[in-house]
Amino acid sequence: MSESPYVRFSCGCVDIHTHVVPQQFPKYMGRHPDARWPVMAPAKPCHQHVMLGGAVYRTVSHQAWDLEVRLADMERMNVERQVLSPMPELLSYWLTGEDGAAMCRFLNETIAAMVQSAPGRFSGLAAVPMQDPQLAIDELHFSIRELGLAGVEIGSNINGTPIGDPLFLPFFQACEKLGAAVFVHPLRPAGLDRIVGKPNYEQVVAFPGEIGLAAISMMTGGTLAAVPGLRIAFSHGGGSLQVQVPRLQKAWEVLPAVREAMAEAPREAAKRMFYDDLLYDATAIAALVRLAGPSQVMVGTDYPFTIMDSEPAQRVESIELDEAVREALRHTNARRWLGLPPAD
Amino acid sequence: MSESPYVRFSCGCVDIHTHVVPQQFPKYMGRHPDARWPVMAPAKPCHQHVMLGGAVYRTVSHQAWDLEVRLADMERMNVERQVLSPMPELLSYWLTGEDGAAMCRFLNETIAAMVQSAPGRFSGLAAVPMQDPQLAIDELHFSIRELGLAGVEIGSNINGTPIGDPLFLPFFQACEKLGAAVFVHPLRPAGLDRIVGKPNYEQVVAFPGEIGLAAISMMTGGTLAAVPGLRIAFSHGGGSLQVQVPRLQKAWEVLPAVREAMAEAPREAAKRMFYDDLLYDATAIAALVRLAGPSQVMVGTDYPFTIMDSEPAQRVESIELDEAVREALRHTNARRWLGLPPAD
Repeated sequence: MSESPYVRFSCGCVDIHTHVVPQQFPKYMGRHPDARWPVMAPAKPCHQHVMLGGAVYRTVSHQAWDLEVRLADMERMNVERQVLSPMPELLSYWLTGEDGAAMCRFLNETIAAMVQSAPGRFSGLAAVPMQDPQLAIDELHFSIRELGLAGVEIGSNINGTPIGDPLFLPFFQACEKLGAAVFVHPLRPAGLDRIVGKPNYEQVVAFPGEIGLAAISMMTGGTLAAVPGLRIAFSHGGGSLQVQVPRLQKAWEVLPAVREAMAEAPREAAKRMFYDDLLYDATAIAALVRLAGPSQVMVGTDYPFTIMDSEPAQRVESIELDEAVREALRHTNARRWLGLPPAD
Repeated sequence: MSESPYVRFSCGCVDIHTHVVPQQFPKYMGRHPDARWPVMAPAKPCHQHVMLGGAVYRTVSHQAWDLEVRLADMERMNVERQVLSPMPELLSYWLTGEDGAAMCRFLNETIAAMVQSAPGRFSGLAAVPMQDPQLAIDELHFSIRELGLAGVEIGSNINGTPIGDPLFLPFFQACEKLGAAVFVHPLRPAGLDRIVGKPNYEQVVAFPGEIGLAAISMMTGGTLAAVPGLRIAFSHGGGSLQVQVPRLQKAWEVLPAVREAMAEAPREAAKRMFYDDLLYDATAIAALVRLAGPSQVMVGTDYPFTIMDSEPAQRVESIELDEAVREALRHTNARRWLGLPPAD
């Protein structure tokens, strides 16, 4: 890493939760004229509208695609390495498998090029068309073996089917075999019909419950037990997971049917998964560390979106934990999750 | 209270989360032959099946209706006072308003009789037909004014409509005016389609997210701001609320639309609601106390159901909090929520 012109410090954080939006999308070349294929449209200076189905899905700044801007922000945020993943809506599970694979390939080549252009500063996560698990496995192979990406980002559910459904077991077995890090992000969350109020609260209030249910589904569906070598991480600190696991543990202890269905105690299973620290609260992060163990929590900011935790280093500093644990949160855990050596 | 033959100790807990199932239900007298009206059926000794729609909904023990058994359990659990509320499924929001009102009246008279038969040991919460808000207000008046109940138990949603919907504002205004304590319990939770696994995990894994969304809806819908004197408590420690509030706070700080929609900061609003401590984990309870403040958390066990926290006093003892705060959790906060004087 010392050869890189970009290295200006060596003890910053590894930020495992940052998103990329390409500067432009290729023209749609598929066979479905109504496909919800993204298109960019001009917005205010340094911004573009991501258009989906003819409407503005989100207006994003050049931080989303411009590496120089990103690197300057990383210096300011004391982030040594960012893990790059697509803006989740771009995972495009609602396209046909064929169209989805084309979109994923474009995203993966874009992210791989970003990783290669600044050695030592980025790791990349692939998009794969989970709506067709075999195509997803194919694209995973290509992304890890040919493009050199570190892993894959997936939604918390695939068009409504939770990731813990046995349907996706072969995909997770492929991840395990390839040593691919898996990053799970909420998408089309459960509970939208439980939200009241005019602003769009979907991502604000429904993401925590959605990511918690996704993590739980990996336990109750048996997938986590079937892929013991899988390195899987959940965004938003696992959301509601930290209040679900003690309750599931209690059920496992007192309900024979639950005990029979889960070989491993839920509290133990929770310690085999990884989590970012995107909880916006030092107490909540400390509670997560207590539940998951000091080796399983990593910095995650949601860069470059409005709701990002913009001071990740100060956040870690503010947690009432031993300095050794804070150091693990800053980079050691992330490097292990990514499959990197402990230090460059 | 000193006159009661039942008083054997004076510094036990107030357990605000306990449920009642009547020993028998009246015969259905309504006009809808297919109404999902509960019927009891014999089960193993000391147990009965609650039958709903011709199927066993749950097999419950005599603890659910037998006061002598309950009082003995309270002594063993070091609980001085239980707050009695109906088993939530009995709230019967799926009946017509008229049928629902009849069921609620029966439940409320049953609970009032239990409260009266052991002075000083119980407070009672009413059921009201929320599917017809005006009938709900009528039954609330009767329950508080005529039956002397302390408040009301409501579901987290009413047939899918979150309690924070403006539709229910008049009901909450009536609660505020009457000084009725409100206890919110998950019912028909969101996220059922996100659960994987054969055992019925509905109540185990979906309740935490459901109750969190209900509490958030009271903030984002404006109801909490409109009834500043309301004493409202959420079961299951508010569930996911403790990870949702810091995120909603962040959104409130950075998104003008959210700021405009909510007069009060989410972190402040969360401190005006009450919560039981049914989180099965001392760290999670301590985190809730830190979020909600030391005056807002109370003991709650889910007695007499299988998943109940059976050692509430030891639970409080195990929380890393000042003894003064633990004392507040044991009974001071609950007495304030119930509208009782600080001590008998």
